[in-house]
Amino acid sequence: MTAGILTVDVPPAVLETVVATRRDLHAHPELGFEEERTSAVVAERLRGLGLEVHTGIGKTGVVGVLRGSAPGKTVMLRADMDALPLEEENEVSYRSQTPVRMHACGHDGHVAMLLGAAELVVRRRDEVAGTICFLFQPAEEGKGGAKAMIEDGVLERFGIERAYGLHLASSQPAGIVGFREGLFYASSDSIEITIEGKGGHGAAPHLSVDPVYVASQFVVAVQQIVSRNIDPIEPAVVTIGAFNGGTTHNVIPSRVRLLGTVRAFDPGVRAAMAERIERVLRGICESSGATYEFTYLWRYPVTSNDVEQTRYVRALGERIVGAERCADVPRLMGAEDFSFFAERVSACFFTIGSNGGPESSWPHHHARFNIDESALAAGVTMMTALALDAPQHAP
Amino acid sequence: MTAGILTVDVPPAVLETVVATRRDLHAHPELGFEEERTSAVVAERLRGLGLEVHTGIGKTGVVGVLRGSAPGKTVMLRADMDALPLEEENEVSYRSQTPVRMHACGHDGHVAMLLGAAELVVRRRDEVAGTICFLFQPAEEGKGGAKAMIEDGVLERFGIERAYGLHLASSQPAGIVGFREGLFYASSDSIEITIEGKGGHGAAPHLSVDPVYVASQFVVAVQQIVSRNIDPIEPAVVTIGAFNGGTTHNVIPSRVRLLGTVRAFDPGVRAAMAERIERVLRGICESSGATYEFTYLWRYPVTSNDVEQTRYVRALGERIVGAERCADVPRLMGAEDFSFFAERVSACFFTIGSNGGPESSWPHHHARFNIDESALAAGVTMMTALALDAPQHAP
Amino acid sequence: MTAGILTVDVPPAVLETVVATRRDLHAHPELGFEEERTSAVVAERLRGLGLEVHTGIGKTGVVGVLRGSAPGKTVMLRADMDALPLEEENEVSYRSQTPVRMHACGHDGHVAMLLGAAELVVRRRDEVAGTICFLFQPAEEGKGGAKAMIEDGVLERFGIERAYGLHLASSQPAGIVGFREGLFYASSDSIEITIEGKGGHGAAPHLSVDPVYVASQFVVAVQQIVSRNIDPIEPAVVTIGAFNGGTTHNVIPSRVRLLGTVRAFDPGVRAAMAERIERVLRGICESSGATYEFTYLWRYPVTSNDVEQTRYVRALGERIVGAERCADVPRLMGAEDFSFFAERVSACFFTIGSNGGPESSWPHHHARFNIDESALAAGVTMMTALALDAPQHAP
Amino acid sequence: MTAGILTVDVPPAVLETVVATRRDLHAHPELGFEEERTSAVVAERLRGLGLEVHTGIGKTGVVGVLRGSAPGKTVMLRADMDALPLEEENEVSYRSQTPVRMHACGHDGHVAMLLGAAELVVRRRDEVAGTICFLFQPAEEGKGGAKAMIEDGVLERFGIERAYGLHLASSQPAGIVGFREGLFYASSDSIEITIEGKGGHGAAPHLSVDPVYVASQFVVAVQQIVSRNIDPIEPAVVTIGAFNGGTTHNVIPSRVRLLGTVRAFDPGVRAAMAERIERVLRGICESSGATYEFTYLWRYPVTSNDVEQTRYVRALGERIVGAERCADVPRLMGAEDFSFFAERVSACFFTIGSNGGPESSWPHHHARFNIDESALAAGVTMMTALALDAPQHAP
Repeated sequence: MTAGILTVDVPPAVLETVVATRRDLHAHPELGFEEERTSAVVAERLRGLGLEVHTGIGKTGVVGVLRGSAPGKTVMLRADMDALPLEEENEVSYRSQTPVRMHACGHDGHVAMLLGAAELVVRRRDEVAGTICFLFQPAEEGKGGAKAMIEDGVLERFGIERAYGLHLASSQPAGIVGFREGLFYASSDSIEITIEGKGGHGAAPHLSVDPVYVASQFVVAVQQIVSRNIDPIEPAVVTIGAFNGGTTHNVIPSRVRLLGTVRAFDPGVRAAMAERIERVLRGICESSGATYEFTYLWRYPVTSNDVEQTRYVRALGERIVGAERCADVPRLMGAEDFSFFAERVSACFFTIGSNGGPESSWPHHHARFNIDESALAAGVTMMTALALDAPQHAP
Repeated sequence: MTAGILTVDVPPAVLETVVATRRDLHAHPELGFEEERTSAVVAERLRGLGLEVHTGIGKTGVVGVLRGSAPGKTVMLRADMDALPLEEENEVSYRSQTPVRMHACGHDGHVAMLLGAAELVVRRRDEVAGTICFLFQPAEEGKGGAKAMIEDGVLERFGIERAYGLHLASSQPAGIVGFREGLFYASSDSIEITIEGKGGHGAAPHLSVDPVYVASQFVVAVQQIVSRNIDPIEPAVVTIGAFNGGTTHNVIPSRVRLLGTVRAFDPGVRAAMAERIERVLRGICESSGATYEFTYLWRYPVTSNDVEQTRYVRALGERIVGAERCADVPRLMGAEDFSFFAERVSACFFTIGSNGGPESSWPHHHARFNIDESALAAGVTMMTALALDAPQHAP
Repeated sequence: MTAGILTVDVPPAVLETVVATRRDLHAHPELGFEEERTSAVVAERLRGLGLEVHTGIGKTGVVGVLRGSAPGKTVMLRADMDALPLEEENEVSYRSQTPVRMHACGHDGHVAMLLGAAELVVRRRDEVAGTICFLFQPAEEGKGGAKAMIEDGVLERFGIERAYGLHLASSQPAGIVGFREGLFYASSDSIEITIEGKGGHGAAPHLSVDPVYVASQFVVAVQQIVSRNIDPIEPAVVTIGAFNGGTTHNVIPSRVRLLGTVRAFDPGVRAAMAERIERVLRGICESSGATYEFTYLWRYPVTSNDVEQTRYVRALGERIVGAERCADVPRLMGAEDFSFFAERVSACFFTIGSNGGPESSWPHHHARFNIDESALAAGVTMMTALALDAPQHAP
Repeated sequence: MTAGILTVDVPPAVLETVVATRRDLHAHPELGFEEERTSAVVAERLRGLGLEVHTGIGKTGVVGVLRGSAPGKTVMLRADMDALPLEEENEVSYRSQTPVRMHACGHDGHVAMLLGAAELVVRRRDEVAGTICFLFQPAEEGKGGAKAMIEDGVLERFGIERAYGLHLASSQPAGIVGFREGLFYASSDSIEITIEGKGGHGAAPHLSVDPVYVASQFVVAVQQIVSRNIDPIEPAVVTIGAFNGGTTHNVIPSRVRLLGTVRAFDPGVRAAMAERIERVLRGICESSGATYEFTYLWRYPVTSNDVEQTRYVRALGERIVGAERCADVPRLMGAEDFSFFAERVSACFFTIGSNGGPESSWPHHHARFNIDESALAAGVTMMTALALDAPQHAP
């Protein structure tokens, strides 16, 4: 349908709505699979645009469908909706209103941008070919909301043939669109460990088995895996993100609870990490007479961008936002459950730089993470362009 | 007044009340300075015995005064009332009814025994010389309830001249009374540490400063002080009882909070520990680029038993409960805020063994700590004997 | 001169000589800059072939020059001659005859192959164009023998325009030739550390500062740099290869000496490693009251293969040894002081697989490292082909 | 024989000889069981005094026998002769002339003092009762020279009934004589550990098992035994005195060798240490895939002074050197193979302070250990007094 050269213009009023939506979502963060308010906001907005709206897919997922007037592929554009269990430290008007909940990874922006794109696409409804699925998924942060939607049959139900997704990135200048062919995001798994000692009085350590000491040894020792056991050429990370044990000064607790994440690109490395982590844990526990429970949760596979698809999206981006605003970006240790979509349909995932200065330069998942909202226009533009162009021109 | 040889008999009904009181208190544990219910129970019982009752001393402390009919010293008999922030793991009918609160150090028994002794002494009122202060103090566990009562003027107000206290001990056979002249319980201080890193995404450790790793290094390294820096002849302990940081798998938290206890007998060792702990903390933090806040809380001094007083109490004990049930006990790394009383008046603190088998052999402060209730009779006997004998015969 | 298609045939007698030479050198290993016997053997052999021989370049380096009868570039073919300070654990007839000296990295094979190639090239003297420099360098293992030869003017003296080198590789099947364009071998630096404590009696640690304990903490803690501080995408290694302190059971020594190696590809990572290692060392030492001396020796830069040059050598290899015996190989954390040549002239460095089974599968620098001698033919072939082809056809 | 009150006077010339002897021995240190020169010097001096001299007892031990003219007990006065494998760092005229050998524990002074006492006693030969055995033993430092002499039958051969020994102490003011009843010196055992990894190239840690890293973990972790596993009231020490592995920067060695010492007073603690050390070692090795060899050498038992004997020696000391120069000293973690004598005959071991200022305040076994030679007179006096008094008056 796009006769001639496609251009995308984001009117100021639409951008204002995108910013307002993002701030509203930011103030009301919800954890994975608990996105009740968020999905209600999304569904209401999509209905307001006249789309066919499907809710409750993968528990709290929402899909808004727009059928074009010309033949074309069925294309899915995806945003994730969940927040993190963090206490926000930003002092902004739209600060999280919920304790220990925070949009610290930019998903608020993803939802707002995709809703903005939906609005623009609806306005240009007659240019639409094929079918566009605006897909809002729950629980990207470690719980596999994408998998839940797929298991709920979302791909077959709508006949999805192509999948596109984006992520805001504080490590990139605001508004720059980042691309990478092939391996992009690492695999991501979770570990859950309980180290069981023997509690007792803090003044009589010899009558106890101190799980705080044992767990601390483990936290230090487990880093040897990355630095000593894995081929240095192969990226790998193990992080213990939570260490909780004990409540008071003078009592040795009975147990300590550890939570962590494991990242890799190579499947052999991934498997070796799982085995080695338990080996280190077992040895350290045995050396002190503690016991343990160890759970390795195989979560997200590597996110691999189809090469042809990525070249297509990049070429489109260079035309629409300008070649000078498109850039190669390196592999990332972060994970994306978009990987579940990319395992099944030809897909491209790209990044939108959100770093506009010191305030928006904190790393993702930090209690002071924030985005430069000027970045939002680029995402709206890219999603709109894909909706208008991909059904007919994507490889 | 005790003409002839003093004997103490604990009638079965009194013992039943002691056990019932202990179980009631056990089911309703309260933290230090929050002993509202406990002190109400104590005050009501003391009033019921016809004693002159003073409440609200040192916030929740209670003193029941019994004035004798003959001249004699003013003698204080002390029980501590507070419980610990632990989740009880015992399956008993009188299990703690409050989450994360537990009488895991035997103070429920101390209160019950002293109330039992008060009842017996009141029954033998005409044998009483001098003045007996049945003193129930709050907050022995690290918060210095004894100090609070002293600062509230309790010693001057009642003219207290001698002080006696006891502690149940799971490391001693049930019913055995333990004595030690001179240094008995260690000094006890608290440390509170916040290690501040830089939070971020668990997959990008290089953009963060990981406080979980840094704190773990510290927990391991701080043990070098006891094993490498302090004269091996000198007892010393540093225990990190609580390590809390992070809430989820894939986020590196901004900070970790550590709580700990420090024990020593020698003042020089105590001072060296304080200095060394911060030195280790500083070096470890600097090596990783983290920062810290360190608070050293000088809590309880060494508990030192007056030699003459102790010989007197032991001789009394040998007469009343039998020499075969009296024993020397070693110095203990545990602390006692009875030390504040012992710094000011001639005092003796002794132990009552509470270990009657596997069920009552768990260490103090353990979530399965319990006492063999047959031990309670010995404590009631000793306290009763002291009330009847000490005003006239204590050195 | 190579009219028609170049072929290289290695007669059995030449191969026998190569094997014999390799074994002779293996039995007589010499450390870097001490290759007196080795360079004498090389010079004698080159003279025997009628080459113009130059010795004493970069102390023990040797160059044999063969001038062709047709015009062409001046091409350098390089072998390194030094061994390692290891005690050989192989039980072979040609086992090292010198204690704590061993050819555990294959340089014996490199010398033997290049001498074999020289013999073949001399036999085909009339096919030679340009000038061929058979260059035998000292001290590749950490001492920069290549740099020493360059500083001695070897490149200008012979007008060298192209440089080729190879390395046997136990991680590759025997006889396979491995190629990589661009970054190939990591930068390699050395660290030398003395940790100074305070010596004393082993039974009185509190009167000493125990450098064994402090150095052990450092060895563990320094691994955090690779696993926590460097971008996981960027390869990096720090290894402490030697830890020596103390001579007897019951004496705490005054100091410990550590030697180590640092590898990276990215210059920023390399600089960060240098800075971080000292930071960890400083923090750990301060935490225990020890002091240190730290020397960071900037040794070998990254070895980067010229892309065009590498494509040329690979194409030549595919023609001569067969495409099925040529393979891409990954970047290696090992370092090569061939990097000094590659910084100055267009160069290609490639690998020759030497793994023919369990006996030849031990890693380089291991006390049981050995090669499958069937691999030697491939190296002789490649070097001969380069001598005959590169002066006229190399890019 | 000592009619009236015993007095001991050390003439200046004798003291000069003592100092000269001590310096000569200091300059010529010999390790345990290698005291060839030292025992030759001793034997020659004893012969020069006209004593009956027995050599070669316990390999290099010497006994000089003086038979008194009156009946009395057979009393042994003991000095140990061996030095340590340390490089002396003192700049004194009598500095050790042998590399890595040093009298860093004062045994040179012990020998010199006992020879001085022998000279004085011989001068007062007619005052001597019973039999005096001036016993010079080899190999006190960890090799059990006392045991060797006992196994050689020295006690039965001379009918020894009482044993006295002394030790210079840099932790005591020069010339002060230190006493302790009962437990005095700790038990002392040795540990010898080989940690076997898998050697390889320093740049490829994933192909190796790094024993330097594993051993470092162990050195840190083993300290938990003293600080977490042993009753804080019970003195205990484990020191790793030697850690040797690797020879060069870029090779991961195959193994690391550790030597250490273990001290305790309580036999249960001693046994627990032995068991726990191996447990920590096993767990740490298994966590990294390394293996180990562990040898626990049960060396010296606790040195326990007979109470009556010690009271006798102290009373003698107070009369001879003055009560103001006698002091109680604490238990010491150092060990003494005098314990083997004290296990068999009634014995007293005491200390002679040797600290006269900064130069003589370095701890024993330090490369700068030295004594204030003014201390030597006290030792000569005590030994002389015991020779003249003990045969008739010792309990």
